[in-house]
Amino acid sequence: MKILIIGAAGMVGRKLVARLCADRGLAGKAIDSMLLYDIVEPEKPDAPWVVETGVGDLSDPGEAERLVTGRPDVIFHLAAVVSGEAETDFDKGYRINLEGTHRLFEAVRALNDSPRLVFASSIAVFGAPFPEKIGDEFLNAPLSSYGTQKACCELLLSDYSRRGFFDGLAIRLPTVVVRPGRPNKAASGFFSNILREPLAGQEAVLPVSREVRHWMVSPRAAAGFLVHAAAIDTQAVGPRRALTMPGVSVTVAEMIEALDRVSGEKRSALIREEPDELVNRLVSGWPRDFNAERATELGFTADSSIDDIIRTHIEEEMGGKLG
Amino acid sequence: MKILIIGAAGMVGRKLVARLCADRGLAGKAIDSMLLYDIVEPEKPDAPWVVETGVGDLSDPGEAERLVTGRPDVIFHLAAVVSGEAETDFDKGYRINLEGTHRLFEAVRALNDSPRLVFASSIAVFGAPFPEKIGDEFLNAPLSSYGTQKACCELLLSDYSRRGFFDGLAIRLPTVVVRPGRPNKAASGFFSNILREPLAGQEAVLPVSREVRHWMVSPRAAAGFLVHAAAIDTQAVGPRRALTMPGVSVTVAEMIEALDRVSGEKRSALIREEPDELVNRLVSGWPRDFNAERATELGFTADSSIDDIIRTHIEEEMGGKLG
Repeated sequence: MKILIIGAAGMVGRKLVARLCADRGLAGKAIDSMLLYDIVEPEKPDAPWVVETGVGDLSDPGEAERLVTGRPDVIFHLAAVVSGEAETDFDKGYRINLEGTHRLFEAVRALNDSPRLVFASSIAVFGAPFPEKIGDEFLNAPLSSYGTQKACCELLLSDYSRRGFFDGLAIRLPTVVVRPGRPNKAASGFFSNILREPLAGQEAVLPVSREVRHWMVSPRAAAGFLVHAAAIDTQAVGPRRALTMPGVSVTVAEMIEALDRVSGEKRSALIREEPDELVNRLVSGWPRDFNAERATELGFTADSSIDDIIRTHIEEEMGGKLG
Repeated sequence: MKILIIGAAGMVGRKLVARLCADRGLAGKAIDSMLLYDIVEPEKPDAPWVVETGVGDLSDPGEAERLVTGRPDVIFHLAAVVSGEAETDFDKGYRINLEGTHRLFEAVRALNDSPRLVFASSIAVFGAPFPEKIGDEFLNAPLSSYGTQKACCELLLSDYSRRGFFDGLAIRLPTVVVRPGRPNKAASGFFSNILREPLAGQEAVLPVSREVRHWMVSPRAAAGFLVHAAAIDTQAVGPRRALTMPGVSVTVAEMIEALDRVSGEKRSALIREEPDELVNRLVSGWPRDFNAERATELGFTADSSIDDIIRTHIEEEMGGKLG
């Protein structure tokens, strides 16, 4: 089995590579080779199969065709300009996120062997106003260019799959928490910061009210979604190939309680409240909770609780020891 | 006021031009000039303002830029490869319906003066299964490439409008009945044929069961939607710029009863039932009824009944006299 991972250097991409190496296969089959591609050089894992890496821009003419010449059996497309950048650089967002993806779909179509294609979409395809719990039949009305690009790609993916050009699944990832690494400038970054920093003995800033509710998943569960999407029987999915992934819906207050509970210490004392108007306004337009019925029926599973998400972080990123 | 109509030679385009000429203006303002564009030469109306015509392919590089050099105040974009052709010629459908529209949006954005842009979308953005009545928050899950292309364009239109590049509205037209002219090969053609032909004293073929229910509107009301969309206060519309238009939901049986009632004769005797497997299968995936609440609140009005739709046809296309 030949695997292509586009966006392999990103956080979710690295988790996916690690998961495949740990599983030593995919969907019950042996992996023969892996091409890891990104805009920066992906790290080469220690794997018992051929691993190649590639660096480039998917939206460059000819690049997508070049990428799929090895005729992969499974393609994971995770590469994207992130939401903030797609908003500030309109042209770049459309070029990479929409045109780049469309070019990939066309290149795969030209192969004429209908591989599995798993596309990382996002809950940013939804925009307020929405019900407290968003169901599987709720409209996509994004309030960002990033969400618009993802929603368009979902539609293309369903159509290309219906026509048999590939066998696609678009999985809408919840916000991934706890993101490893340093605090970044993403508006959603504080959801990770208020857990990761106190766990490491560092201060963190909370820019929103403790009543804010959001939809999240661990990096481990996100990688699990991708692996499951590559293995699933798509006959059971039908023509609607975009699936809202399950997640954990919690308030900031509940996250903070879980932080103290899991750490066994009053680590929340390291959280400093510093309300930020802009972040508050952005967050108010984000989904809070979902009824991810279809994905759940199809066997996608998220973390069982925010406590679980925190424990996963301590285990995977901190070697089991608090800072 | 300068007006650009793309797709002016089509049935809805011609109705729109006639309506603007009859109104002698748009949105309470005088019209200074009109550019009528299509893939075939549009007919030049007898109008009290400058009328230019243009012929070409919107998806050709540079064509969209050339079209908007006159800096139109209002753009109607009605041009599309129809649903059947978009299905049989995959590349052409995407090139014209998605790439062509995207090129137009980019050309308008480059003008930097945010004109009103009215885009003719379609109920083909919806695909089965759906509720008996489809509401304004139901997801777009098209089951055709045509519907996919329209749904993508709607998303782009909302995003470009949100960013202020133009002031767009996408209006989802019901099936237009009674289409003037000769019977055509469109799968939905029978909805018009079973009225138009008997009214003209000709035989018509009914390929589906009389229980089939569908959503329709007269050509006159469709032109009215376009004119209203050009005049409306978009502040009241908000960021969700795609609107399902109101229509009339009737069964084939009700259409046939109305035919006899309005004609005052048993014209339905001219309808021959000849079930067609393919048409039946296609029709079963089409929407039957909508709750077009948003559009209704925004002042869009459809015909009041199927009787009205038939009377409009007799008046506009038959000079008030049956054949």
